[in-house]
Amino acid sequence: RINGDRLWDSLMEMAKIGPGIAGGNNRQTLTDADAEGRKLFKAWCDDAGLTMGVDQMGTMFMTRAGTDPDALPVYIGSHLDTQPTGGKYDGVLGVLSGLEVVRTLNDLGIRTKHPIVVTNWTNEEGARFAPAMLASGVFAGIHDLDYAYARKDPEGKSFGDELKRIGWVGEEEVGARKMHAYFEYHIEQGPILEAENKQIGVVTHCQGLWWLEFTLTGKEAHTGSTPMNMRVNAGLAMSRILEMVQDVAMAEQPGAVGGVGQMFFSPNSRNVLPGKVVFTVDIRTPSQEKLDRMRAKIEKQAAEICDKLGVGCSVEAVGHFDPITFDPVLVGRVRDAAEKLGCSHMNIISGAGHDACWAAKVAPATMIMCPCVGGLSHNEAEEISKEWASAGADVLFHAVLETAEI
Amino acid sequence: RINGDRLWDSLMEMAKIGPGIAGGNNRQTLTDADAEGRKLFKAWCDDAGLTMGVDQMGTMFMTRAGTDPDALPVYIGSHLDTQPTGGKYDGVLGVLSGLEVVRTLNDLGIRTKHPIVVTNWTNEEGARFAPAMLASGVFAGIHDLDYAYARKDPEGKSFGDELKRIGWVGEEEVGARKMHAYFEYHIEQGPILEAENKQIGVVTHCQGLWWLEFTLTGKEAHTGSTPMNMRVNAGLAMSRILEMVQDVAMAEQPGAVGGVGQMFFSPNSRNVLPGKVVFTVDIRTPSQEKLDRMRAKIEKQAAEICDKLGVGCSVEAVGHFDPITFDPVLVGRVRDAAEKLGCSHMNIISGAGHDACWAAKVAPATMIMCPCVGGLSHNEAEEISKEWASAGADVLFHAVLETAEI
Ligand SMILES: NC(=O)NCCC(=O)O
Ligand SMILES: NC(=O)NCCC(=O)O
Repeated sequence: RINGDRLWDSLMEMAKIGPGIAGGNNRQTLTDADAEGRKLFKAWCDDAGLTMGVDQMGTMFMTRAGTDPDALPVYIGSHLDTQPTGGKYDGVLGVLSGLEVVRTLNDLGIRTKHPIVVTNWTNEEGARFAPAMLASGVFAGIHDLDYAYARKDPEGKSFGDELKRIGWVGEEEVGARKMHAYFEYHIEQGPILEAENKQIGVVTHCQGLWWLEFTLTGKEAHTGSTPMNMRVNAGLAMSRILEMVQDVAMAEQPGAVGGVGQMFFSPNSRNVLPGKVVFTVDIRTPSQEKLDRMRAKIEKQAAEICDKLGVGCSVEAVGHFDPITFDPVLVGRVRDAAEKLGCSHMNIISGAGHDACWAAKVAPATMIMCPCVGGLSHNEAEEISKEWASAGADVLFHAVLETAEI
Repeated sequence: RINGDRLWDSLMEMAKIGPGIAGGNNRQTLTDADAEGRKLFKAWCDDAGLTMGVDQMGTMFMTRAGTDPDALPVYIGSHLDTQPTGGKYDGVLGVLSGLEVVRTLNDLGIRTKHPIVVTNWTNEEGARFAPAMLASGVFAGIHDLDYAYARKDPEGKSFGDELKRIGWVGEEEVGARKMHAYFEYHIEQGPILEAENKQIGVVTHCQGLWWLEFTLTGKEAHTGSTPMNMRVNAGLAMSRILEMVQDVAMAEQPGAVGGVGQMFFSPNSRNVLPGKVVFTVDIRTPSQEKLDRMRAKIEKQAAEICDKLGVGCSVEAVGHFDPITFDPVLVGRVRDAAEKLGCSHMNIISGAGHDACWAAKVAPATMIMCPCVGGLSHNEAEEISKEWASAGADVLFHAVLETAEI
């Protein structure tokens, strides 16, 4: 078994970097806080005898050598970046549990046939630069490096410039590495495991996603002196689209979600009807058929809503993945490990996207989940218990050991 | 008659300061551009022989002496500040036409019994610091000076600090001046005069306003892994309130408007349901009864919408004035002047709020309006013709002369 206290202490230590305003973290990707978090993680990896490789996306690959020079590595990955008002565990638990697996192997003096590589993927959250899971997406050949470098944050700073600024442009070609297997351990970020009173989620699938960025063009005009019948009101069109997205998601229940997290009005002045409203619709479901249907419905109905109001409507897909099925052999190993360790477990579909989704495109991959309090995540109040954290890390340890072979 | 070319040249000269991005202006109150605009205006006033007084709100009072030492001054006022994406005429036309009246009197060697004071009120727009017409509101005793100084822009900078920063805190006590009469000349900012093909709007009333700032409190949560039935979705509540405001305004047609220009999501991340949504509802109508009813309906129905979704809802009134009736004697003088000059004219109700609304609380006051193309204002594309500008300035000249007495 891994050392649960050590894992917890490391989680608490990392949480001191980029503190939030309400007990959580603001360690957004490619900020100074991200650089500081990377430095601490590297120092811990150095102590554990790992050697570092960094690719052109800034992803950190920390390798524990194997005994067979021809064996491909087993990867354990997740991310250290957070939402602007994020929790202490989302991503961090997976990276530091990878480190804890290595520390435990060191303690026990166990050497594996396959190398083990603990990985910190850059910009998993996608909060600063859309889309999410950007570095793993380039790794899997989903995006070009140029596309990734050109992504802009809301202030107009580019991913490429910011990666350079914090000093983490590596030399490795992105995606050059071959993986024997990929494991990712993550908090559920949803309410199911806690409600079902299970310690371990055996993740069989991940639901698919579209991020549809709408740009609505109205006519900037005075809110007081512009009669109702002369308005080209982009704000009103937006409100109807939000309600429609809700309806579209409700029509696909159970197993579908839709909502909006990001919204910009321009010029954003109290007495000016907005000339431009930009917002991103986030829709997800494990069913490919539902995902396609929801997207089609939303685009069609949004166009109708805007037409009726004379508002211009353009849509750009700024994030997308189809539903993912994880590798049945690895999934079986996770289930076996939970069983062997006496952990209660159930199959689960990931509601959030993860780097494992892209890793699954180029290698056998799977995930392990632990519950989180109230299903709350992307919230500074995100919480888990030390026992939950340890149980999942134990399962990770055993599934990895099985795969990396002694 | 005034010199229409000189007036137009001054308008174009002022428009060079704080240029916008689409041919208009961004000379928001208490910015460096505002300071530069004030400097240019002062230089012109110096050339015209005016003496300056500045009050603690930074309002500039530029006086042309009268012949009777006991006679109270006639004021001609408006504002040089603009919206973030504002036009070249909103406010500026009124201030520079006041200057043009003085220049014309100088040209003609006319001295008036009453002094004439050309006034540039600070922060008429309310775009940076709510409420609008802030300095004239303090002048009229509607707001305290402390309240005004404490107003914050979206970056958290206070009005008081910014006024100090640009160096325009005057020594005069706000509201100490007594006015014989107050005139304000402004573009209509609406479509009526152009549609009716009239040169002059004789402004008899101004419609009343409420700015209701809503703060909706939802639960920050992951957009992907949070099931629809577990969401406390402040964004959805906002969309329903916007639609409801539209319905409430439509129910009071004709003669009522309602809309939303300013919107903030927090944390404003694509994959986080907003924990907080803040926006300002702007409702207006010339009828006191309708204004009261609209506000009551909106607050009641917003509370119901939020209750149903479990979303917290608080409302702060950040701007308000009741419908205003302008002084019948001054209104008559404006109508007579238009008649005498052979200008086509009609009675009109101001759709926008103006400093004249607060001046009307402490002195006989009225306004003159000229058409603007397509009724468009609070838009960089705001446009008027030189002829329209001149005709209104001529009417101003004659109405002021009648009031200031030779
Ligand atoms: N795990 C996680 O929150 N990833 C961010 C990408 C997403 O929105 O699913
Ligand atoms: N005239 C004008 O646009 N004033 C700003 C205050 C308002 O919104 O009416």
